[in-house]
Amino acid sequence: MYEENRQRLADLAVVLGANVQPGQIVSIGADVGQDEMTRAIAESAYRHGAKFVDVTYFDPYVKRARIEFAGDDTLDFVPTWYGERVLAIGSQRAARISLAGPTAPGALNGLDPVRAGRDQLPYVRESMIIIAERTTNWTIVPCPVPAWAELAHPELEPEEALARLWDEVLHVCRMDEPDPIAAWRQRLDALGSVARTLNERRFDSIHFEGPGTDLTVGLLPSSRWLTALEETVDGIVHLANLPTEELFTCPDPARAEGRVRSTRPLVLADGTIIRGLEVRFESGRAVEIDAVEGAEVLRGRAAIDEGASRLGEIALVDREGRIGRLETVFYDTLLDENAVSHIALGDGVGDAVEEEDAGRVNRSAMHIDFMIGGEDVDATGITREGERIALLRGGSWRI
Amino acid sequence: MYEENRQRLADLAVVLGANVQPGQIVSIGADVGQDEMTRAIAESAYRHGAKFVDVTYFDPYVKRARIEFAGDDTLDFVPTWYGERVLAIGSQRAARISLAGPTAPGALNGLDPVRAGRDQLPYVRESMIIIAERTTNWTIVPCPVPAWAELAHPELEPEEALARLWDEVLHVCRMDEPDPIAAWRQRLDALGSVARTLNERRFDSIHFEGPGTDLTVGLLPSSRWLTALEETVDGIVHLANLPTEELFTCPDPARAEGRVRSTRPLVLADGTIIRGLEVRFESGRAVEIDAVEGAEVLRGRAAIDEGASRLGEIALVDREGRIGRLETVFYDTLLDENAVSHIALGDGVGDAVEEEDAGRVNRSAMHIDFMIGGEDVDATGITREGERIALLRGGSWRI
Repeated sequence: MYEENRQRLADLAVVLGANVQPGQIVSIGADVGQDEMTRAIAESAYRHGAKFVDVTYFDPYVKRARIEFAGDDTLDFVPTWYGERVLAIGSQRAARISLAGPTAPGALNGLDPVRAGRDQLPYVRESMIIIAERTTNWTIVPCPVPAWAELAHPELEPEEALARLWDEVLHVCRMDEPDPIAAWRQRLDALGSVARTLNERRFDSIHFEGPGTDLTVGLLPSSRWLTALEETVDGIVHLANLPTEELFTCPDPARAEGRVRSTRPLVLADGTIIRGLEVRFESGRAVEIDAVEGAEVLRGRAAIDEGASRLGEIALVDREGRIGRLETVFYDTLLDENAVSHIALGDGVGDAVEEEDAGRVNRSAMHIDFMIGGEDVDATGITREGERIALLRGGSWRI
Repeated sequence: MYEENRQRLADLAVVLGANVQPGQIVSIGADVGQDEMTRAIAESAYRHGAKFVDVTYFDPYVKRARIEFAGDDTLDFVPTWYGERVLAIGSQRAARISLAGPTAPGALNGLDPVRAGRDQLPYVRESMIIIAERTTNWTIVPCPVPAWAELAHPELEPEEALARLWDEVLHVCRMDEPDPIAAWRQRLDALGSVARTLNERRFDSIHFEGPGTDLTVGLLPSSRWLTALEETVDGIVHLANLPTEELFTCPDPARAEGRVRSTRPLVLADGTIIRGLEVRFESGRAVEIDAVEGAEVLRGRAAIDEGASRLGEIALVDREGRIGRLETVFYDTLLDENAVSHIALGDGVGDAVEEEDAGRVNRSAMHIDFMIGGEDVDATGITREGERIALLRGGSWRI
């Protein structure tokens, strides 16, 4: 079942996503349970000339055992070879493909959230370094599995839920188009054009206003709006997220003021779900984190280091994207963040600023996006002179 | 199902097998499909004070994709970080627990055996270095899974087959004893006593004689007979194989003469099964490798380097062991090699010789044991003076 879907999605990830070059090492990061898609990607990568496919399977239940039983003083320990491997991937110019989507939503249920927050794996700090240095061509693609389908479509029978999720993933990846790669080029051209207009205006800050939300996020003087279409130092153009609908940039970590209400549930990499999130910012710092469910987990994450309570990313998403038009909450950042506008606590997207602001980019061992946009949330650009320019109204670009 | 079995076997692996020390990193090597046992071992390791449990899951189907589609000139490539990780495990004095047992017996079916032979993974050359340097306390334990049960017991329904395999694994691991650890200490004492007697005689060679077998294997002047009870440079005593019934030593790679017929099927780490194996040795080198099934695969392995066609190990197993008394062929080296006497092509067990012979130990990137003993195969020790001393007759020690 779904073998052809997996093969087609694997090819899209290898060709359009990571843009694997002949002779490259390709590192695939997956969870236990994502093995069928991992194998399809490995096969596609080898067919496209990969020198070696390096697979790491992460096991959320081994993480659970750690958080449950390991000593308090060991929970943030990471073996040296985890980071060294990532740095070698960069220095050897390897490609990277990560699989997204929940695999074990309840794996950490009932654990102490403070202890859970101290274990950041499978996230490895060094991955942000090689992304910032642009030494790896990479992508993240969704991987439909039964556990995810049941989470996203609890109202359906398991088999129907998986069929629905696959249909949605094919749709949002534009794989129901006659020529998916051409469809992506068209959408990316359109997003690129809006990005150029935003960059010409050089806004000082962005103001979000909607139910529960009145938040102003400052930008750095050289902040540039980017799409997920990126280019390595060696000139390999890759699409870092598949699907992607966002324009994003790096905010000023010292300037966020006001209150924001999340418009979608947030699912952390470890499966924890945070619902009804509300965050208040003062001078760039998240000083209050409340939620209907899971607040203490995010508070734990936001306390792991100085930068974890400040913003590292701000992204605008319009309603022309395919995800926002679906009614589905995917409980997965890759898809949900591309449905609506969002911000991220933690490590900053350094390649969105010029050298002169590099020292002001937020730095943290974590990076967690959460969704704050929607058709009833207005986004307004504020220029250095205080002029207010409508950016998004009712989910549509006004610029 | 079998959760209690897994927990008890995990504890035995952690306490008696690897003898995990508080504060140690514990690296677990498993295949995809061995996740439940892996999690039980991770939990036990953390309960016993592990600082971190580092799990690597190997996927035989990703290996299949490589052998099927990767370029010819890439098949023996291994990323630098694979070996560096292993060396770091040694230098940081980590423990290692590997899971044994077939998980995907047909994964490489129909592939070119020469290409398959060039990909040695999941075996990493550096693991032999840290074993020889005794910087890691390690063990290998069997992991019953449905695919293995069906291979070992094709005559039974799948559920019965798995139940039978679990019963057998518990029995051969002496877990049906009131105090399994005490039972192991008793057996290891008995084996240690025979080893001392063998070492006092300082045999020059061992002669095997039985149906299809007339093979003389020379020993090095300082070859000592060992059990799987080993000790690290830091004095951590660990049981490298669980179960274990063998006495083994390092032969002279330049002196093996005659013909030997394997008495059990040989299952390679990648799932390839070699049946009816017959090997002829001249001056220590395997000059003919024949088999009813799979000969070309072993020929491929034996050709990967100079040492791959010479012997690195010789082991004697008596019928008092628990595995030999079962009628089952397990299609797994860990269990089958502990049923009967065996020899291994490839890398030599360097810690079985003194410094003066270290330079004469066989060196290779591979080490493959195959079974040559049984109740109808006699083993005779030949002294430097040419005296012949009966060692095993009808499977029992005569010394």
